[in-house]
Amino acid sequence: MALAPPLPDATADELAAMYKALADPTRIQMLHMLSAAEEPICVCDFTAAFDLGQPTVSHHLAKLKQAGFVDSFKRGVWAFYRLRDDMPKSARAALATIPR
Amino acid sequence: MALAPPLPDATADELAAMYKALADPTRIQMLHMLSAAEEPICVCDFTAAFDLGQPTVSHHLAKLKQAGFVDSFKRGVWAFYRLRDDMPKSARAALATIPR
Repeated sequence: MALAPPLPDATADELAAMYKALADPTRIQMLHMLSAAEEPICVCDFTAAFDLGQPTVSHHLAKLKQAGFVDSFKRGVWAFYRLRDDMPKSARAALATIPR
Repeated sequence: MALAPPLPDATADELAAMYKALADPTRIQMLHMLSAAEEPICVCDFTAAFDLGQPTVSHHLAKLKQAGFVDSFKRGVWAFYRLRDDMPKSARAALATIPR
């Protein structure tokens, strides 16, 4: 049976990388919280919410940033994170799969 | 700032496991092809489509089955795979993020 032509390699690779960023329960929780938040969330608030050290929290947020879900800014010594308004379409669709 | 209460651990864990199954370009391609196919697809056809040995192809399909996307049946010596009609809601939503 003839199978549908494959997606371009780059498309499949990008999607796989995005799913890899989502394949972690802490990062899913972070996206859940960012979706519900009315303001950007400080790394310090994430650190308080999870039973993890701040470097681990920052590592998870860096993964989400790399995957295109969030961006960040500094306010004094603290980094704040928020969902990107302009995230890639696939990221937006993936975000919609996380329950509110 | 008060963050939204986290999702139940089991919910976050299940979603993470599902995304782990998707975090592979070959498995994404397989789901793309299964979505387009009008009939179940034989392991032999997947093996021909990808430059991979049949055990690797079967391993990928087993991962997709474990994650709830596909089920399989035997016809003679060959295993055939198809998308589940009754896949979990989160799997259905995740499947929708893969371009046609």
